[in-house]
Amino acid sequence: MEFFEAVQKRRSVRKYSDKPVPEQVMNKALDAALLAPNSSNAQTWQFHWVRTPALKKKMVDACLGQGAAATAQELLVVSIKPNLWKKTTQEILNSKQPEGLEKQMQQYYGKLIPFMYGMQILAPLKWIIFNGMGLFKATPRKPWSLRDRTETCVKSAALGCENFMLAIAAQGFDTCPMEGFDESRVKSILNLGWGDTVVMVISVGERVDRGVWGPRHRGPRDWFVFEV
Amino acid sequence: MEFFEAVQKRRSVRKYSDKPVPEQVMNKALDAALLAPNSSNAQTWQFHWVRTPALKKKMVDACLGQGAAATAQELLVVSIKPNLWKKTTQEILNSKQPEGLEKQMQQYYGKLIPFMYGMQILAPLKWIIFNGMGLFKATPRKPWSLRDRTETCVKSAALGCENFMLAIAAQGFDTCPMEGFDESRVKSILNLGWGDTVVMVISVGERVDRGVWGPRHRGPRDWFVFEV
Repeated sequence: MEFFEAVQKRRSVRKYSDKPVPEQVMNKALDAALLAPNSSNAQTWQFHWVRTPALKKKMVDACLGQGAAATAQELLVVSIKPNLWKKTTQEILNSKQPEGLEKQMQQYYGKLIPFMYGMQILAPLKWIIFNGMGLFKATPRKPWSLRDRTETCVKSAALGCENFMLAIAAQGFDTCPMEGFDESRVKSILNLGWGDTVVMVISVGERVDRGVWGPRHRGPRDWFVFEV
Repeated sequence: MEFFEAVQKRRSVRKYSDKPVPEQVMNKALDAALLAPNSSNAQTWQFHWVRTPALKKKMVDACLGQGAAATAQELLVVSIKPNLWKKTTQEILNSKQPEGLEKQMQQYYGKLIPFMYGMQILAPLKWIIFNGMGLFKATPRKPWSLRDRTETCVKSAALGCENFMLAIAAQGFDTCPMEGFDESRVKSILNLGWGDTVVMVISVGERVDRGVWGPRHRGPRDWFVFEV
């Protein structure tokens, strides 16, 4: 499907038909999700495709029983595991570097990233150093703390979510991104770690008539887009 | 361009040619950004297209002078303004509601959203109420605090960013999402409010040879995708 057609087709669907979603449709969309850009290529995202009927039932409950989950053919939970940075950046360091960038990559993944993503205990010190430097010259201000790191990882995971949803639309199926869920229960159902955050639950299926609640609604463009 | 082709084509480009990006290419991508799903349709995102040469120069400096900014034809700053929820949800309440959902919409936008997005001073109380309820039944845990609200808004804005970047790719141009910038300086250049957060700076142009640093690199799929 043409890109802009997929963007137009994608709507949040609250009620699905009983048409199954082929496995290859899900896998193709998951592969597209993994191709989204992400912060420092640290790939701290995780995509949990909930297929076991018992777990799916629990997940619908954790999504407050809403129709978008209850009638879904498939459920995908997207979460972040910030500590994955250690494994992923080590893997990058161990692999062949782009020609001419070997030193730069070593510096970035061997020194800068461990200082940003790790050493959380030094967060207040990092804050002082970088905000101090920032008085004199342009200096990145994030992510130095646990909280900033979560924000950075959530942002990257969201880029992957959008790829996933558009990829499902491009293959003729529908999605609904849900944030109305009980995060504690979702984490316990999936055995996620305490440092993990659930980004969203995405349901997948084929829309029925009135599966979409109404025409698309957006405020006036000039509330959101500025030329400066 | 076909959707999956756009996903494959999109790479983070660090060096652009001097080919200008037509205005309609930018506008079409901005329109696509505004069609991304977003939390409660509160549309708390803002897209600042930096066109004035003097501001652009300052922005390149705030992006630490990196090539992806310095050689860019266009720069877009994406930020969130969480307080926009008041204006956007009022506008939704004032408009025609989908048939049969009038009461539900009134409840949601008139009561639930003001309680979630507003009344920040009650955050600790809200936390106690909802985590208390959560002991007995599935209960949404976010966004009750300022911090949660920021996370929610950043997440939605990121969905819009991905639409924008893919839309640029689908029109034959390139982008680079940057998080290595001085947020304080970016906010001051654009006169953003204290409650605003800069989500990312996206540069736009046409890639030159070696504008992309190397082949795409991702860790093994089974670190990120799980069937449960």
